Amino acid sequence: MSDKYVFPAVTPLVASLPSTVPFTGPEAIERKTGHLFRARLGANENGFGPAPSVIEALKNSPNEVWKYGDPENYDLTNALAELYDLKPNELTIGPGVDSLLGVIVRQYIEPGDVVINSLGGYPTFNYHVAGFGGKLVEVPYLNDKADLQALSDAAHKYKAKIVYLANPDNPLGTWHNENAIEAFIKSLPETTLLVLDEAYGELAPKNELPAMSKLWPNVLRMRTFSKAYGLAGLRCGYAIGFSELINMFDKIRDHFSVNKMAQIAALQALADRKYLEEVIKKIETAKQQIVTIAGKNGLKTLPSATNFVAIDCGRDGKFATAVLNELIKRQIFVRKPFVPVLDRLIRVSVGPRKELDLFAEAFSYALIAADKG
Amino acid sequence: MSDKYVFPAVTPLVASLPSTVPFTGPEAIERKTGHLFRARLGANENGFGPAPSVIEALKNSPNEVWKYGDPENYDLTNALAELYDLKPNELTIGPGVDSLLGVIVRQYIEPGDVVINSLGGYPTFNYHVAGFGGKLVEVPYLNDKADLQALSDAAHKYKAKIVYLANPDNPLGTWHNENAIEAFIKSLPETTLLVLDEAYGELAPKNELPAMSKLWPNVLRMRTFSKAYGLAGLRCGYAIGFSELINMFDKIRDHFSVNKMAQIAALQALADRKYLEEVIKKIETAKQQIVTIAGKNGLKTLPSATNFVAIDCGRDGKFATAVLNELIKRQIFVRKPFVPVLDRLIRVSVGPRKELDLFAEAFSYALIAADKG
Repeated sequence: MSDKYVFPAVTPLVASLPSTVPFTGPEAIERKTGHLFRARLGANENGFGPAPSVIEALKNSPNEVWKYGDPENYDLTNALAELYDLKPNELTIGPGVDSLLGVIVRQYIEPGDVVINSLGGYPTFNYHVAGFGGKLVEVPYLNDKADLQALSDAAHKYKAKIVYLANPDNPLGTWHNENAIEAFIKSLPETTLLVLDEAYGELAPKNELPAMSKLWPNVLRMRTFSKAYGLAGLRCGYAIGFSELINMFDKIRDHFSVNKMAQIAALQALADRKYLEEVIKKIETAKQQIVTIAGKNGLKTLPSATNFVAIDCGRDGKFATAVLNELIKRQIFVRKPFVPVLDRLIRVSVGPRKELDLFAEAFSYALIAADKG
Repeated sequence: MSDKYVFPAVTPLVASLPSTVPFTGPEAIERKTGHLFRARLGANENGFGPAPSVIEALKNSPNEVWKYGDPENYDLTNALAELYDLKPNELTIGPGVDSLLGVIVRQYIEPGDVVINSLGGYPTFNYHVAGFGGKLVEVPYLNDKADLQALSDAAHKYKAKIVYLANPDNPLGTWHNENAIEAFIKSLPETTLLVLDEAYGELAPKNELPAMSKLWPNVLRMRTFSKAYGLAGLRCGYAIGFSELINMFDKIRDHFSVNKMAQIAALQALADRKYLEEVIKKIETAKQQIVTIAGKNGLKTLPSATNFVAIDCGRDGKFATAVLNELIKRQIFVRKPFVPVLDRLIRVSVGPRKELDLFAEAFSYALIAADKG
């Protein structure tokens, strides 16, 4: 009917974009299948949840929600600066890393500028690159790890404005240590910005990643409260870098975008170091459970410094996709990568024992069903 | 020290932008003065807060915050569609109107494109226009109301891509009725998008604004949970329009940006129609109190269809600024417009009786002090 109307024209760039959703939410699958998931192990959330002290702080805070949050995120910025031995102007807080990635791409990318990511790397970052007209160059993983040499070579070859590296990696879980990262940064053109997404940083083995006080003039480090801290639903992440880089965010960020409950919860989560240590152990135990479940089915897993484990289904992408679908049919939510080589994997996030037991049971049947299918 | 470093170059557009903050938060003033505000009446928040049923829902929801929110905002979208007799694809939810305004400007504006706003109109909208390189043309208010004829003339003259109109207006509080708005829309070029910001829409006199089911092919209507619903700190707003316009948001929006507690709170707030009616009455009473306070000081106020009242301090901008500063010195947070003609006003948001009494007391002294100063 509406072809009789004239609509105001969006920009040619926006007109050219598809209406992509980088990730379908588990809720959409539930609505489609008509069944609630029995285990939510697909979005790399932290099923152990935030600290009881954070839950308590949130329960005490609803009377504050009529107020806009502090646009400077002053308390949280200063708490993080103190924790990491940084200056407050070396940090900026945003409503989740996804949003910060968009703000970063907007800062550096004009249509046609080249951006490098691993092939099969974080889709939401690629979504932002496309959204600002960037030209994405994708570099295959090497032996299930980001190929630092090839990423650096591509940065030089294409005079890339940005290189994105998730370390620890998502969706693989593997990582490079401090020495490798430092050498990688040194190898990059100084005009190339490295977006070093360390969303899973708290879950890496101790002393494997560079100290948080470590900054480089062409690096923005990203951290979040969504993973180890168990606050994915509240949307709070931050970027760390030289103040000259951090200042740029204030030019275009949504100043009031971090919600008041996120500010309150994140501050309390930071203060509760004891719980963080405990939950890291729980996550370790859960990852070991996933490894064991895979092993019982004769399958190998990739090493993981995150809150998930990538299970190698041992055959091709078609088979692993069938396994995924059989799991979803059994109301177990997991996700998987779809690009070649990685597509043999399914990615299982940690969760409480009960949920992993449900996964274990369903997984054996799913492997059989996928084999028959 | 850092002049020895090379930093990756941001785009020329971003490089050209100042590090503006559209609004300084009251928290920043508190930190600067070293005193907490005794009354928070400056940010057009709703000091009566959300419904008790919403507070209850929030207290019951912290165990959900480890999960990402539904990226489709399905439940809230459908509840709004039902309430307003719209199709779900005629609505999109975002983390506050501020954020949605940024997404809209990004959709339509390329560097150099003209955008029209009232002179002294919403600064955060202008911030986004600058942020995407738009050229802002500002049209003076006429008799303390948006000058619809002049806005329309400017849209034609400059072939504007967007015209922004807050109705009811911020910072004035005045409004145009349905007939005037319909005539205004009819008068615009069909290639010009009208961003009709109705953040205060629930607070307008009944039947003054167009019914919510009313759509036009070149209009996006904006609504929020920050004002009447008392949820400013949770960040939740929405845009309404033809599905052809709403579809565009999915191309560039941050899909997971609406936080889980906002989704839960907004859904409950919508369901509690009784509280909404009650709080609208409380806001009316509070506005009448502000009018009375002004009157006792021999001052006039502008008519208001919002949750604030603009008091005409009766002299020039310098005097009104002095009054504002004297109020802040007395720990009363209010704001004021600074552009000529409007600059004679201070803007006082509603709040509970106790806070308005504090304002009343401080205001008399502030007027005397400003007069002496």
